[in-house]
Amino acid sequence: MGAREVGLPDRVPAEGLPERVTIWEVGARDGLQNEKAVVPVEVKLEFLDRLAGAGLSVLEATSFVHPKWVPQLADAEQLLAGLERREGVSYPVLVPNARGLDRALAAGVSSIAIFASATETFAKRNLNSSLDEQFGMFEPVVERALAEGLQVRGYLSMCFGDPWEGPVPAEQVVAAGRRLLDMGCFQLSLGDTIGVATPGQVERVVGGFASPDQLAVHFHDTYGQALSNTLAALRLGVSTVDSSAGGLGGCPYAESATGNLATEDLVWLLDGLGIEHGADLDALVRTSTWMAEQLGRPSPSRVVKALAG
Amino acid sequence: MGAREVGLPDRVPAEGLPERVTIWEVGARDGLQNEKAVVPVEVKLEFLDRLAGAGLSVLEATSFVHPKWVPQLADAEQLLAGLERREGVSYPVLVPNARGLDRALAAGVSSIAIFASATETFAKRNLNSSLDEQFGMFEPVVERALAEGLQVRGYLSMCFGDPWEGPVPAEQVVAAGRRLLDMGCFQLSLGDTIGVATPGQVERVVGGFASPDQLAVHFHDTYGQALSNTLAALRLGVSTVDSSAGGLGGCPYAESATGNLATEDLVWLLDGLGIEHGADLDALVRTSTWMAEQLGRPSPSRVVKALAG
Repeated sequence: MGAREVGLPDRVPAEGLPERVTIWEVGARDGLQNEKAVVPVEVKLEFLDRLAGAGLSVLEATSFVHPKWVPQLADAEQLLAGLERREGVSYPVLVPNARGLDRALAAGVSSIAIFASATETFAKRNLNSSLDEQFGMFEPVVERALAEGLQVRGYLSMCFGDPWEGPVPAEQVVAAGRRLLDMGCFQLSLGDTIGVATPGQVERVVGGFASPDQLAVHFHDTYGQALSNTLAALRLGVSTVDSSAGGLGGCPYAESATGNLATEDLVWLLDGLGIEHGADLDALVRTSTWMAEQLGRPSPSRVVKALAG
Repeated sequence: MGAREVGLPDRVPAEGLPERVTIWEVGARDGLQNEKAVVPVEVKLEFLDRLAGAGLSVLEATSFVHPKWVPQLADAEQLLAGLERREGVSYPVLVPNARGLDRALAAGVSSIAIFASATETFAKRNLNSSLDEQFGMFEPVVERALAEGLQVRGYLSMCFGDPWEGPVPAEQVVAAGRRLLDMGCFQLSLGDTIGVATPGQVERVVGGFASPDQLAVHFHDTYGQALSNTLAALRLGVSTVDSSAGGLGGCPYAESATGNLATEDLVWLLDGLGIEHGADLDALVRTSTWMAEQLGRPSPSRVVKALAG
């Protein structure tokens, strides 16, 4: 007999948490971008359609990064052309630079995200830019996107640790994040790209911003800390959480490690706490089980493992 | 490059948490009892010695349950006879009944644990007793153990959900737990045997007891919730946490599911929060990697997966 069949988890709210959380589903972009397998566009389209059917309202669909860097998402145009958009669901896309914005605009998107670094080393490696210079690169992109009426989200990566530099000063993260917000990003997603954060850090970094309404958190589960960190962020008033169906997306810096926080593990937490989110756990588990078959590897999500059997 | 090599996790304390946590390591008992493989006694002895060498100070060593029910621990006498006890380390054993206590006393143990149920169905299935009657069974065992100068811990299982009954009323858990404390147990370990709990439940159940000093928490990671629940308990002043090196111990009610909270995942959290615990993470990871080889299956611990490579 499974826990779901006997009505578990029990719903018991806790003090000081938001009533509703928006799940920003990144499986199709951040997840598939970091999977070894290149997934056919038809499978991606079915994946997105199933996720929408499961009640998720924000599905980051793909990235307009150069195919040379991320061959897994080289089919971005084809994907967006084939996408059957559902009422009430948004399909943001990642845009790394001006050329990416051209492609996104040509594809008719209405919501984009840019991807900045909180550290020098990752800015250099990922953007071939300094920490400071990257903003000069993003500014005209954001300006033009806003002028075209797009919604722009800012990702900030390596907010809680950097694989080359180690600890990252909170002030540095906050200063970088503020520049993205000042540029006109409607939301800043604080990324723990290598999954090392713990809740004290979350409190320090999130607490450095004036308003938790403008923040989202993006935790990777490499060291099993993603959900605890999410809980810490929720306690501080953050109400948008990034996650990936089935925990898709290995960590590119550690071959064997797990990737994004699994949407199903997050949903179990939210269900137990009686926090509204709009998604159906069983439909998500079915979707991730199906996707795991497509990828030929089991889902690292604890919930999917427990309920799929 | 690994996170540990660049000094991560960063140590950032959070408000309202204990300064020090006692890790009650259950890998050799609760872990191995639920693994399919029967591990040779020499391997168990090396496992316990390595865990003590890694700085853990409480190692639940084995169980005096009838070998017919748990053949994995049929070597309890042999194990205790071969154990090289280290200074400052305690080696409690599980004692299910009067016969088990006889065996434990004959083996010269100084610390035992009894295992009660918070629900009718599990009391019936595990002890062939009613929820109420089980205390009558435990009373003479505890009385005699205390008279013999032993330390007695009380486990209470199914505190946050039962696979047959579903949700378990907090009042029922608190009432059952109080009976174990009133009997003379120095500590009560609240068990989420099937891993379904979420933090609101933890607050409600833990908050039902007068003093968090007398409590320990015992979470299973079946649905990925164990560490978030631990964090919720730490915030309420609980400072003893049960965990299992490498996350040993599948859940007996779900073949594919993961078992106990992994000690390594807990230690990452505590390290990041600057909470003292005395254990060395790298030594634990080496131990669990070695143990996984003995068992012929990879550790489900996120930290072990990420750092073992």
